[in-house]
Amino acid sequence: MTPTITAFESSPDRAQGLARDMRVRWALEEAGQPYEVRLVSFKAMKEPAHRALHPFGQIPTYEEGELALFESGAIVLHIAQRHAGLLPHDANARARAVMWMFAALNTVEPPILELQTAKFAEGDKPWSAERLPLIKDRIRARLDDLAVRLGDADWLDGAFSAGDLMMVHTLQRLKPSGLLDDYPNLAAYVARAEARPAYRRAFAAQLAVFTGAHPAG
Amino acid sequence: MTPTITAFESSPDRAQGLARDMRVRWALEEAGQPYEVRLVSFKAMKEPAHRALHPFGQIPTYEEGELALFESGAIVLHIAQRHAGLLPHDANARARAVMWMFAALNTVEPPILELQTAKFAEGDKPWSAERLPLIKDRIRARLDDLAVRLGDADWLDGAFSAGDLMMVHTLQRLKPSGLLDDYPNLAAYVARAEARPAYRRAFAAQLAVFTGAHPAG
Repeated sequence: MTPTITAFESSPDRAQGLARDMRVRWALEEAGQPYEVRLVSFKAMKEPAHRALHPFGQIPTYEEGELALFESGAIVLHIAQRHAGLLPHDANARARAVMWMFAALNTVEPPILELQTAKFAEGDKPWSAERLPLIKDRIRARLDDLAVRLGDADWLDGAFSAGDLMMVHTLQRLKPSGLLDDYPNLAAYVARAEARPAYRRAFAAQLAVFTGAHPAG
Repeated sequence: MTPTITAFESSPDRAQGLARDMRVRWALEEAGQPYEVRLVSFKAMKEPAHRALHPFGQIPTYEEGELALFESGAIVLHIAQRHAGLLPHDANARARAVMWMFAALNTVEPPILELQTAKFAEGDKPWSAERLPLIKDRIRARLDDLAVRLGDADWLDGAFSAGDLMMVHTLQRLKPSGLLDDYPNLAAYVARAEARPAYRRAFAAQLAVFTGAHPAG
């Protein structure tokens, strides 16, 4: 059964692929699975019909027969567990790949979200400029550790996995800040992921929503 | 094989059970699995031996034979997938329980972490007092939605699951703020979880580290 995901009807990031539907699109492309997309407006996201799917009124959601999920991490893990291409077969390696998904979402992403909140929710406050360096220091503390662990490897633990997918998408949000430029191996890691055919197909698909183009012809 | 987890040698929260080893202890107790604990000092956490286990220099970690994991979410999920008691058998219900784990860690926890950061890392800044209401509003936005979804149910989706475990532990961090008091059903949800025998055993075990008592006699 072809799953249906939800995505923003109009892009808050000018279709740079930073919205969380990109994670699900990318995972489905890595797994070679077709999917349908239902676009949701900012207004509709907060209404009861959408909240029945996503209690926090956000995107993406994932519907497949009787199953309805929200949370990009949960959706990507569900796809990764059901289809080949995103998790290793060995049980221990599989647990470590899932570990990197959680590390991306719960250790690396929180200070990056703080930077976004500082800009978009508190950008007009008198403390805004003075706080930015503090937040950036907290992000750098995570990037320092991540860069050491990655070293000169291509991916975080052996072959590309759902852990890399989540980590790369989390790091991509740092591009406008320039923070990644100080970490050549992390910047190369992100670029390596972006060169994957599955990533490019997912990126084109989210871009097409906003340009009106049809990537698959 | 009995797993070994790591925990703080000295408690940053006066043994209130808010450190993340509590999540792993609780999961192991729900699963009825014995475990060993290795205590780590704040200094040792940042040294190479511990960083080989946890690249971000934190606790908890989990070692079981050849497998070494960090990230409380990943460890709890690993335990839940290997032992009965934390995930339903039905595949769709299982995916939804995992979804609530991610919702706790990636949607509900980030604004709660912001409140902690505001107090401990920016408590001496001139903007500290003025920012607190903004952060609390962002937390309330999440609690509003969560309270609506929970309604008068005992747990988030059917029987108690690893999703409830993570959500409750995330919400517990709000106790000092008093924010939970405005949400009677969420406060009752937390209290219901804290009354579980497995929770109480885990709480006693983390408390014993700091009091020197031996909970199991």
